[in-house]
Amino acid sequence: MKQLDKITPLEQDFAKWYTDVVKQGELIEYGPTKGTLIFKPNSFGIWELIQKELNEEFKKHGVKNVYLPLFIPDRLFLKEKEHVAGFNPELATITRVGDKELDEKIYVRPTSEVLFADLFKKIIESHKDLPIIYNQWANVVRWEKTTNPFLRSREFLWQEGHTCHNTSIEARKLTKTMINLYSKFAKKYLAIPVIVGKKTPYEKFAGACTTYTIEAMMKDGKALQTGTSHYFAQNFSKAFDITFKNKNNEAEYVYQTSWGVSTRLIGAIIMTHGDNRGIVIPPRVAPVQIDILELFSNKEPKVHEKALEIYVQLSKKFRVRLDSSEKMPGFKAANSEIQGVPLRIEIGPRDLENNSVTVVRRDTLEKITVNISELKSVVKDLLDKIHANLYSQAAERLKKNTVFVDNYVDFKAKIKENKFVIAPFCCSEEAEILIKEETGASTRCIPRKINKPSKAQECIFQKCKNKTNKYVIFARAY
Amino acid sequence: MKQLDKITPLEQDFAKWYTDVVKQGELIEYGPTKGTLIFKPNSFGIWELIQKELNEEFKKHGVKNVYLPLFIPDRLFLKEKEHVAGFNPELATITRVGDKELDEKIYVRPTSEVLFADLFKKIIESHKDLPIIYNQWANVVRWEKTTNPFLRSREFLWQEGHTCHNTSIEARKLTKTMINLYSKFAKKYLAIPVIVGKKTPYEKFAGACTTYTIEAMMKDGKALQTGTSHYFAQNFSKAFDITFKNKNNEAEYVYQTSWGVSTRLIGAIIMTHGDNRGIVIPPRVAPVQIDILELFSNKEPKVHEKALEIYVQLSKKFRVRLDSSEKMPGFKAANSEIQGVPLRIEIGPRDLENNSVTVVRRDTLEKITVNISELKSVVKDLLDKIHANLYSQAAERLKKNTVFVDNYVDFKAKIKENKFVIAPFCCSEEAEILIKEETGASTRCIPRKINKPSKAQECIFQKCKNKTNKYVIFARAY
Repeated sequence: MKQLDKITPLEQDFAKWYTDVVKQGELIEYGPTKGTLIFKPNSFGIWELIQKELNEEFKKHGVKNVYLPLFIPDRLFLKEKEHVAGFNPELATITRVGDKELDEKIYVRPTSEVLFADLFKKIIESHKDLPIIYNQWANVVRWEKTTNPFLRSREFLWQEGHTCHNTSIEARKLTKTMINLYSKFAKKYLAIPVIVGKKTPYEKFAGACTTYTIEAMMKDGKALQTGTSHYFAQNFSKAFDITFKNKNNEAEYVYQTSWGVSTRLIGAIIMTHGDNRGIVIPPRVAPVQIDILELFSNKEPKVHEKALEIYVQLSKKFRVRLDSSEKMPGFKAANSEIQGVPLRIEIGPRDLENNSVTVVRRDTLEKITVNISELKSVVKDLLDKIHANLYSQAAERLKKNTVFVDNYVDFKAKIKENKFVIAPFCCSEEAEILIKEETGASTRCIPRKINKPSKAQECIFQKCKNKTNKYVIFARAY
Repeated sequence: MKQLDKITPLEQDFAKWYTDVVKQGELIEYGPTKGTLIFKPNSFGIWELIQKELNEEFKKHGVKNVYLPLFIPDRLFLKEKEHVAGFNPELATITRVGDKELDEKIYVRPTSEVLFADLFKKIIESHKDLPIIYNQWANVVRWEKTTNPFLRSREFLWQEGHTCHNTSIEARKLTKTMINLYSKFAKKYLAIPVIVGKKTPYEKFAGACTTYTIEAMMKDGKALQTGTSHYFAQNFSKAFDITFKNKNNEAEYVYQTSWGVSTRLIGAIIMTHGDNRGIVIPPRVAPVQIDILELFSNKEPKVHEKALEIYVQLSKKFRVRLDSSEKMPGFKAANSEIQGVPLRIEIGPRDLENNSVTVVRRDTLEKITVNISELKSVVKDLLDKIHANLYSQAAERLKKNTVFVDNYVDFKAKIKENKFVIAPFCCSEEAEILIKEETGASTRCIPRKINKPSKAQECIFQKCKNKTNKYVIFARAY
């Protein structure tokens, strides 16, 4: 039994607060290989619920789940040059098996575009075989230099969708459909508001034509890319020779997309909703939605009886946990709070007399006395309210901390304050690199919805004299 | 659109039949790295249903899902000698990242005992922390020399449960609980009868004290180990120093177990139920339970209307697929059969007049005319009947092909006929190796339930003069 340690206040040191709560919230342990993570039940449970709900959403779009190998042989990886260049430094490479050297190096997948491309070449013949809309849930490996739980680890879990289409129009449409699906999912299940937009040429995915992204604002004002959707056009199909016979019986290259979200989403949840008491898990993806805490049941056995009765009743509809241990009430409450359980129900000897219990909200810490006969409907209502409250708080914060600027002096000042800064930007790669060097800010996206001046403006970067119609969001980012 | 090729008859060449049906049944493609597999929707869908149902069963025993890293650093792996010796030749080894050599070799997990042991050491302090009953769904890698789809591939998917207990009694009990759970699961969901038993010392898992197994008989008479459960006693806890404070506040080593089933189960399904028309998937784990085939809907548009109506109605309760393509009726039926869909519904212009459809069972090929108003209940009933029929056929085959022998001449003859042979055996390692060399048969298990003579018998192996009370099942195996 671990004791609860003190959590560093988030206002004081956000990074330290984060590592404190992921550890004490029973989310992770560090793995024995540097930069790897162990997902404990409280974090893997979130991921399982994300999987379940996303699978339901995917199904509506005809997505079929498959599983491709972990390994990419050298010869396959070298086929798409832009792609290989983007991943090369991070590739974990298998050179031996047992005591034997392999003839060909094998990489552990950092993503699976080339594996899917190789598969598509085998199984596609005619336009009747299209579209193919595949997805896989898998582990991927990128040997990052600096790591951070959930946000950047050497192995992470994700889903990656890969599709092939007859036409460019259909593929482009699916790319957008998927980023919109992610955006709605973030709102509906994670209570996280996101900005949908397009990546600049410099920030787009290696090998992609267009990359769409959803960007969320963490409590410290920094941005977190929480999902992406890529349109490849025929980049991979040409490199891998993936053709189909069209209706006129002519060979054509397929049009492709890929899209994914990862266990980063768990990091996004923590940094969007957490507070100085620990993490706060939105009810729809909380592995435990309700903690039932018995208080002083060692002194009054009827407390346990009643608590068990409530547990059995609520379990039919909610994800419930019963704490019948002899730990002190204060410890039990703190433990539930630090682990982010949306609601807790406290039941002690005095409650029995009144046939009531105390329900405590994790988000507002409000305590509510509830008659046991009404508990089920009250709890349902409260879980929905918590979700709505978490979302609206995050949405307000995002709104308040997003600013327009039209000159580089203001730009630098606002970036320093960790704001999301919207500015006219010419999207030249050179300017983007220099801005990052000077301010620490990267472009997050060219947002889809924005009220921008109708006239072309001068690029925010002082050395550029370019006029531009594009407005881009800059921020410091994870 | 691939054409359907001919399937080699299973009586003629079972191995060739197997590779034909896994490929043509839309289960797999081969991966680009030798010995790896691509799970297409028809096989990954089976695995997802197995996951779902096993998770439900696990939950009843307090199992919590977690996820541990893919990588095992060299120093960790070397801690348990028997274990490392068992896996060493098969270990995929990472020595480089990008262009840099690593200081320490890293192995891709072949199983995760050592990773769990390392975790347990960190998180266990007191007897109040126990039991810990964790499970993970993961990919593991074993560089096998010869591979076979689902049965033996270099990467496979599985679940591995890992538990820690206060007492030996509790750990032993859980080991048995889990093998019984697997046995019931195989019957209830996969329609596969299995024999539950204990492995001989020679065949037990590297590092385990006792290994329980479930063994199934394939259609060619060979055995397939389909699930195992291991009792470790304190073997790993001593090697990894995993202690807890017991009720007297004394440090004690924990007692451990592990247990798992893998994507081998898909191989077991194919080789238990498949026939010369393709695979046959038991209804409870069939990704598609019912195929609805429109016949001549290009000539009579109302066929499509009606088929769609039936599709919408049945989809509420079953996993249904609608084939509205213009392919020929014979092709559609063959396609559904080769993919193992338990039921197909054929609807053509003539059926519309009678307000009926033709329902065809995959297992018996029986054709039944059903009035559309009764379709839902008939279909439900038929799916249950198919499950029961598949199970009873397999159970009869197992019974018929399991024989007792008491001398080595008969033993060799029966093994040659690919029977399961039960014989008195002293369980000496030397005898076991020699028998395998001479007959190709390995010990499958010491079965739990068996009618054996009360007197000790002479060991079946002629060179042994040992008397023994143990009866052991021998068979050729996958």
